[in-house]
Amino acid sequence: MSEFDLIKRHFTRASPGAVLGVGDDCALLQVREGHVLAVSSDMLVSGTHFFPDADPYQLGHKTLAVNLSDLAAMGATPRWATLALSLSDADEDWLERFSAGFFALAQQHGVDLVGGDTTRGPLNLCVTIMGEVPVAQALRREGAQVGDDVWVSGKLGDAALALAHMQGKLVLSEQDYAACAPALHSPQPRVALGLALRGIAHSAIDVSDGLVADLGHILERSAVRAELSLAGLPVSGVLRGHTAQLVSCALAGGDDYELCFTAAIRQRVSIADIATRLALPLTRIGRIVAGSGCVVHDADGQPIQLQNGGYEHF
Amino acid sequence: MSEFDLIKRHFTRASPGAVLGVGDDCALLQVREGHVLAVSSDMLVSGTHFFPDADPYQLGHKTLAVNLSDLAAMGATPRWATLALSLSDADEDWLERFSAGFFALAQQHGVDLVGGDTTRGPLNLCVTIMGEVPVAQALRREGAQVGDDVWVSGKLGDAALALAHMQGKLVLSEQDYAACAPALHSPQPRVALGLALRGIAHSAIDVSDGLVADLGHILERSAVRAELSLAGLPVSGVLRGHTAQLVSCALAGGDDYELCFTAAIRQRVSIADIATRLALPLTRIGRIVAGSGCVVHDADGQPIQLQNGGYEHF
Repeated sequence: MSEFDLIKRHFTRASPGAVLGVGDDCALLQVREGHVLAVSSDMLVSGTHFFPDADPYQLGHKTLAVNLSDLAAMGATPRWATLALSLSDADEDWLERFSAGFFALAQQHGVDLVGGDTTRGPLNLCVTIMGEVPVAQALRREGAQVGDDVWVSGKLGDAALALAHMQGKLVLSEQDYAACAPALHSPQPRVALGLALRGIAHSAIDVSDGLVADLGHILERSAVRAELSLAGLPVSGVLRGHTAQLVSCALAGGDDYELCFTAAIRQRVSIADIATRLALPLTRIGRIVAGSGCVVHDADGQPIQLQNGGYEHF
Repeated sequence: MSEFDLIKRHFTRASPGAVLGVGDDCALLQVREGHVLAVSSDMLVSGTHFFPDADPYQLGHKTLAVNLSDLAAMGATPRWATLALSLSDADEDWLERFSAGFFALAQQHGVDLVGGDTTRGPLNLCVTIMGEVPVAQALRREGAQVGDDVWVSGKLGDAALALAHMQGKLVLSEQDYAACAPALHSPQPRVALGLALRGIAHSAIDVSDGLVADLGHILERSAVRAELSLAGLPVSGVLRGHTAQLVSCALAGGDDYELCFTAAIRQRVSIADIATRLALPLTRIGRIVAGSGCVVHDADGQPIQLQNGGYEHF
């Protein structure tokens, strides 16, 4: 069996949700009536997005998770994905564990891997994720309205704190690292939340490059301003204890994969109900006002100066 | 303007064929009623698929062309694409020429770039192409029938001959190289042919890894055998003159991006009409018989031994 066949073996599974899956020039997919296709592509590069010795199971999970997060932010139901990967060699153990992590998450979200490409080269993973949403219910960035609450799911900044530890920029205790590491290595895409927010949120985005940078995209597209309170941000006890990192990790850390969204005040009860139903904290972190830009107030009501709006991939 | 913005600027164009294009978490696309979505992803890696100093305009063209070729082989109408790319740096001139080559071909085929990703890393280009086809008219690999003719479009092997020259494996005259080089650097995806073959071809594939290897996929999926004649293969005068390379380039060369398809004998007139209408040579190169595998007969009727069935990307 050639290396090529080995790789194909690891990435060929049944695709019951496709008209035609892996094995032809294209996959054929039937989008359900009344729905549009939601599509996003993300590329993960060794040394840029993950350490070359990253655990392959976690890497397989995360490769799909960051893409599912984009569907979640659109309020779309996940359906299909393609995976193109370049590898320097075909390490059987690595492939087995990577694909196990990828498919475990795919199965959890009903995603069929319907195509892709395998080639030789520096380690690079490119997923195109596809889902469905009724067009009028899609959660766009441009819908934020003056008077909206600004919300965020889960907790912010733990992934950035864990990354800082791995990069040697600070030292976490073993216990603290263990508490933060899952946010970095095994982010849980907020797909169920995105679906629950259909018809409730006015706008949404996933927080992958830092809260202020990503919320900034909503603000720019919606031509509005946000006022946030640092004290109101949902952060873990571990991050709260690292005062020097609190602002940079919570506001400008990358890799959170939480949803930031805006909704009218009248939706507060519905949103609290969603939080309960999904067992996922949803925190009101500020409000949308007229104007442009984003201001974050500290405990004294003073605006915080942000050195760096967010993580840039380039 | 940051490097990130520079890149975005080069790859953000209007996308009139999308409900929502670049600039949100996902693109939103409406597949026309009566059609299924045809999807394929290809990854091109510097040093594996192209030389690091490849002309960026041609590379932009080819990056999209190899993907369009997959849609062509399915008989699908091109509609949308995403492009994820990693770059070691943001060379403005390179980006401008690469995107010019990409968009020139995209415009020619009515393809909107609706999303993607830009990141830092070794040069890698990943396109996901999307098109539409009525499901019953899709040209699958599995439909070849005993008694079918085997056809191929254009000419085979010029790209492989040009590549051998570039790799120093042989020396072509300047004139000969000039004649072969466009096949390698600027392949023309056979989209119009794929559309014309709806309802006519029983099976189709694009020849990207060598005729015998790619036809082999049709044979395997259709559980049939092919008998070809070397003398009947459409090759250029240049390749015909390089007898030592003729077999390897025409039968097992990569990068042809022609369509190989099978059709009933009664379709010969229709296919000749298509060739005339598209001004594209369509050559009958053999027939489908019962059995398995592929045999190519030389001028004496003897089967040719193939050392290497095709180009493997790994």
